Amino acid sequence: MDMSENHRHDPYAFMGVPQLGIRNYWYPALASWRLGRRPKAVKMLGEDIVLFRDDKKIYALQDRCAHRGAKLSRGKCLYPGSGTLSCPYHGWTYKGETGKVIAKLVEGPDAPIPDKARVKTYPVREFRGAIWVFIGDMAAVPLEDDLPECIAKPDEWHMIWNWRTYKCDWRLLSDNLSHDQHAPFVHRNSPEMLLKPIFPHATRNATEPLDNGKGIGHRAYDGVTSAEYPDLGRFPPKQEWYRLLKATGRAVEMDPVNAPAVKKYGIRFRHMSMLPAIHLIGRPSGDFFTCRWILPIDQSTTILYNFNLFRRRGKLGFISDWMDWIIWKSWAHDWLFSDQDKWIVEHVTPGPELLSRTDISVTAWRRFSMANARQPPATNPVVFAPRAATAK
Amino acid sequence: MDMSENHRHDPYAFMGVPQLGIRNYWYPALASWRLGRRPKAVKMLGEDIVLFRDDKKIYALQDRCAHRGAKLSRGKCLYPGSGTLSCPYHGWTYKGETGKVIAKLVEGPDAPIPDKARVKTYPVREFRGAIWVFIGDMAAVPLEDDLPECIAKPDEWHMIWNWRTYKCDWRLLSDNLSHDQHAPFVHRNSPEMLLKPIFPHATRNATEPLDNGKGIGHRAYDGVTSAEYPDLGRFPPKQEWYRLLKATGRAVEMDPVNAPAVKKYGIRFRHMSMLPAIHLIGRPSGDFFTCRWILPIDQSTTILYNFNLFRRRGKLGFISDWMDWIIWKSWAHDWLFSDQDKWIVEHVTPGPELLSRTDISVTAWRRFSMANARQPPATNPVVFAPRAATAK
Amino acid sequence: MDMSENHRHDPYAFMGVPQLGIRNYWYPALASWRLGRRPKAVKMLGEDIVLFRDDKKIYALQDRCAHRGAKLSRGKCLYPGSGTLSCPYHGWTYKGETGKVIAKLVEGPDAPIPDKARVKTYPVREFRGAIWVFIGDMAAVPLEDDLPECIAKPDEWHMIWNWRTYKCDWRLLSDNLSHDQHAPFVHRNSPEMLLKPIFPHATRNATEPLDNGKGIGHRAYDGVTSAEYPDLGRFPPKQEWYRLLKATGRAVEMDPVNAPAVKKYGIRFRHMSMLPAIHLIGRPSGDFFTCRWILPIDQSTTILYNFNLFRRRGKLGFISDWMDWIIWKSWAHDWLFSDQDKWIVEHVTPGPELLSRTDISVTAWRRFSMANARQPPATNPVVFAPRAATAK
Repeated sequence: MDMSENHRHDPYAFMGVPQLGIRNYWYPALASWRLGRRPKAVKMLGEDIVLFRDDKKIYALQDRCAHRGAKLSRGKCLYPGSGTLSCPYHGWTYKGETGKVIAKLVEGPDAPIPDKARVKTYPVREFRGAIWVFIGDMAAVPLEDDLPECIAKPDEWHMIWNWRTYKCDWRLLSDNLSHDQHAPFVHRNSPEMLLKPIFPHATRNATEPLDNGKGIGHRAYDGVTSAEYPDLGRFPPKQEWYRLLKATGRAVEMDPVNAPAVKKYGIRFRHMSMLPAIHLIGRPSGDFFTCRWILPIDQSTTILYNFNLFRRRGKLGFISDWMDWIIWKSWAHDWLFSDQDKWIVEHVTPGPELLSRTDISVTAWRRFSMANARQPPATNPVVFAPRAATAK
Repeated sequence: MDMSENHRHDPYAFMGVPQLGIRNYWYPALASWRLGRRPKAVKMLGEDIVLFRDDKKIYALQDRCAHRGAKLSRGKCLYPGSGTLSCPYHGWTYKGETGKVIAKLVEGPDAPIPDKARVKTYPVREFRGAIWVFIGDMAAVPLEDDLPECIAKPDEWHMIWNWRTYKCDWRLLSDNLSHDQHAPFVHRNSPEMLLKPIFPHATRNATEPLDNGKGIGHRAYDGVTSAEYPDLGRFPPKQEWYRLLKATGRAVEMDPVNAPAVKKYGIRFRHMSMLPAIHLIGRPSGDFFTCRWILPIDQSTTILYNFNLFRRRGKLGFISDWMDWIIWKSWAHDWLFSDQDKWIVEHVTPGPELLSRTDISVTAWRRFSMANARQPPATNPVVFAPRAATAK
Repeated sequence: MDMSENHRHDPYAFMGVPQLGIRNYWYPALASWRLGRRPKAVKMLGEDIVLFRDDKKIYALQDRCAHRGAKLSRGKCLYPGSGTLSCPYHGWTYKGETGKVIAKLVEGPDAPIPDKARVKTYPVREFRGAIWVFIGDMAAVPLEDDLPECIAKPDEWHMIWNWRTYKCDWRLLSDNLSHDQHAPFVHRNSPEMLLKPIFPHATRNATEPLDNGKGIGHRAYDGVTSAEYPDLGRFPPKQEWYRLLKATGRAVEMDPVNAPAVKKYGIRFRHMSMLPAIHLIGRPSGDFFTCRWILPIDQSTTILYNFNLFRRRGKLGFISDWMDWIIWKSWAHDWLFSDQDKWIVEHVTPGPELLSRTDISVTAWRRFSMANARQPPATNPVVFAPRAATAK
C-alpha cells in the first residue's frame, strides 16, 4: 500500500466514497418510542421519508405526495387498521405496504386511480427498540444480514443506546472511527481514561478482512506509552497534570492469543469496521462492544448511533451493566469522550490530505468499503453478441 | 381537457407561470397608515421599491440610488412640498413624479445632471386605505380596471382587511385558492365550520370565463356529504368528534338559479379567480366576499391580502358586520381557517405533480391566466416583408 | 478625467479592484492583548490563518492541517519554547518559523516526514500593541514600509485605537473613506459636528500623488456653507434644529499655506489615501490624525481599524489627549459619527453606478491604487526567443 500517495483536492471523490452515504444497506432510522400515533418525517442518505405505525406495523414511504407535493408526514392515519396514510392536502390515501394510492378522499370513491399514483416504499423493520430502514436501489436483504452479531442476537447481548447529531460530512466521522490513531492524542485527557493505562501510540496498524466478508478488523502493534522527540521532548508531555493520576504500564490493544475475547469467544479484533458505516470497538474481555453506526442525513449533517452492547451474564450482570452505564459510561464515554471527537470533526475543513502511517486503517477501510459495497444487480445484463463489439 | 396529463419536473415552468408573479397589473403594496413621514421599503414581484408620501401625494421609486447604490428608503423628504426624496448618501434628490434627479445636494446647484441620473418610477395610487402599485413593463392601466367590483365600489361595499406573510412560492398559494377541493378535507375540523353544513366533496368542477373577461368562475356540482370507500370505510371518518357538532344535510355550493346572489345581484359564481392572482369567495346571499389577493415578494415569500367585503346595508348592517368580524370572522376565519392552508402550502415540496379531477379548476386557472395575462404592447411590430422569410 | 464615464454592472470588476482586498501588503490582524496562551483563528483577505505566541514570539500559519484538514487553531503549543503548534487531531507539530512538520506525535519519532508536510507561513510582526500580518504572494517588505509615518514613529505620535466589523464589501467602505464628499450630508447632524463650523459642500476636488509614492492626497476647494437650489430651497435646509447650535462661518478644509500642519510639519493634505486601503484624515493643527485601515475579511465582512494618532506634546498633552478621547472622541467620533457611515455602507446595493463631480477622489483613488499596487516579481521573465513568436 502506497502511503505516500496524496489525495489532492477531494480524496473522497477520488476513491468514490459517496457524499450521501453507501446505499443498499439497512440503517437505524429512529428509536421505536419516538414513533407514536403521528407520522414522523426522517431524512436518511438525503432522502425524505415518512414513517408511520398502524395496527402494530410500521411503514416507510417517500415523504412527498405524488399529487401536488404536500408532505405526507403532516397527514394522518385516518383509517386505523387499514395500514394507510392520508395526505393532509386532498386526502390521497396511500397503502403503506405498496405505496399505492387506494383512495382519493375528496374526489370520491369512483375517482380513477392511475398507476402512477404511488410513492416509493422503503423496507422497514422494528427490532431491538429501533426502526430500521433499507435505503437503496434493489430488493432489501434480510435485516439480520446487515447487523453485527452483537446486535443481531438479543439473547446473548443486551443493549443501551443513544444518538447524537454531528454537523459534518459523514465521511469525516467515518475516518475518525476507523482506528486512525487519534485516540492517544485527542482522548489522552478524557476523564474516562484518567485511571486507565495509557493508550499506546506510535503503533503499526494492519487490517485484515473479517471472516464474514462484511468488513475489516484493525490491529495495532508495537505501540509505546511515551517517546522522545528531537527538539521537542517527551510525548505525552510531562507537564500534563492528568498524567499523575494515570496508572503507568504499557497499554496493549488486546493480547491476540490470550485475551478472553479471543480464547473464549473467538473475537479476533478489538476494533472492526463493517459495511455500510459501522465501527465496533470492543474490550479484551469480550463482554462489551460499543457499536457506532453512522447515518448520513445530508451533506453537512450526520447522526451517530451509539449502541453499547453488553454480553448477557445473568440478572446480576444485567443490573451491574446498567449501573455501570448510568453512573459512569453515560457521561464519561457517551458524552465527554465522544464530544472530544465531535469537537474535532465538526471543525475539519474538507480538502486535500496528506496520508501517513497512522492512516493505514483509514485508507484500508475506504478501499474495502468501496470494493465490497453491495451493488444492485445489473438490470441490463450484457448478453453475448459478437457484432455489438464494434457498435457505439 | 386532458386530466391524465402529468406535468413532470416543473409544472409551472411548463405552463409559463412566472416565479415572481404576473407583471403588468396593480397590486396592493401597503396599508396607508403604515406610510408616515419616513419613506418605506417594500419588495413586490422581486423588485425593491421605496414608497414615500409628500404633501398628500404618494410616490413609488426604484429603491436604489443611481449614483452609488444607496437605498433611497433610508433617505428623507428634505423639502416638504416639493415631492422629492433625497438619497441618504450624497443627497441626490429625486422628483417622485419622474424619478429624475433635480439636485445633487452636496455637489452644488451648478452640478450637471445627466439624463441618466434617474430611477424607475412606479405608478402608485392610494385607494380604500391601501397603497396600490402597478408593476410591469408598460404604461399603467387605470387602477379600477384591475379591481374586483366589490373593491372598486366603496359606496356599495365596505371593507375590513388584513394580510399575512407566507414562506412559500406564490404559485403554491394560488393553486390552493383556485377551488382545488381541498376544503372538505383540510377545513373539515375548522372551528368556523363547526356548526355549518358539511362541505360537499366528490364534486365535479367546471369553470367558465367571467363576463368581464378578467377571470373565471368556478362551479362544483354533484357533491356528497359522505361516501363509502372500499377497504377503508366512510369519509368523513365516523370517529371524528367534531362531526357530532355539525349540522347534517347536504351542503350546496350555491343554488345556480335561486340563490339571492344570482337572483338579486346577478353574481353567477360563488368562487372566482381573476387576474393577476385574485381569488374571490362569496356567499349565496350575495352580501359578502372574501377577496384574497396574492402578492409575490420573492422566490419563497408571498403576502396574502385578505379583503373582507360586506355589502352596505345601512348603519345597522355596518355595525353588525363589524361585530361579526370582531367576534367571529377575525379569528375563526382570517386566523384559524386560513392558517390551515398556510400550514399546508408552506410544506409543499415543489416538483412533479399528478393532476386529478379535483384539479380541474387549478389547471383551468393556470391556463386562463397564462392565455389572458395582460401583455405590454409589442415595441417592434412585425412589418410585412416578404423577403424576410428566408432571413435568419 | 472623464467623469461622465458610467461603470455599468460591476464598476469594481471594470477597474480591477479585487473583491478580497489588495494583496502583498501588511494588514493589522489582531490587538496584541487578544492573543494569549491559546492559538487564535483570524480570517484576512479570505484566508484562514492561525496566530500563536510562544516564548515571546508570534507566528502565523495557514489554519488547516496538511494531514487531514483539522483546524490548527484548535490545537495547542504543547512544547513551550519550541515555537511549535500541534494539530488537535493527530498531533502533527508545526514549526511556526517554517510551517514545516517536525513531529507527528502519535506516529512516533521515527515517522517519515515528507517535504509536503507543511503549511503556508505568513510574515508576522508585533508592533504598537497590534499584530500585523503580510498577506500576499511574495517575500514580505519591512512592516515600516507599509505604515503611515504617524504609526511608524511611536516617539512622535501616541495612539488610541479600536475596530468595528462592517457587514459589507470592503470596497464600499473604501469608497466611503475616499473623500467622496458625503460628509456635509451624512454627518451634518452628528453630535461631533454640533458646535463646529459647517462642513463645506459643493467643493471642487483634486488629488495629487503623495511624495512617498504610496498614495494620494485629496484637496477640496471652493466649498460653500449653504446654497440655494431651484424648486427646493436652501441646503442645508433651514428647518433642521441642529443648525441653530452650529457656529456659522465658512468652513475651510485646511489653509494650504498657513495651516500649522503645512507650515510647521509640512503635512500637505488634510485627507490622504494610501495603499493598500488606508485613509488618513488629519487636522489643520497637524497634531492629530484618524487613520482608518480597512481589512477585508470575506465577500461581505470587513473590519475597520480606527487608529487615533496624537502628536506627543509632553505628559500634560498626553493626559489631555486621553481625556479628550474618553470624554468626547470615543463616543462622539468613534461611535456615533462612524456609525452614520456604517448605517449607509451596509445598505448599499452593489451594482451600476453613475459617477459625478463628488466622486473625483473616489475614481482617482481606485485608479491610483490599481496602477500602483505592489506586484510580486514576475517568476517567469520572458526571454527573447524569436522562434517562439509563432509557437502556440
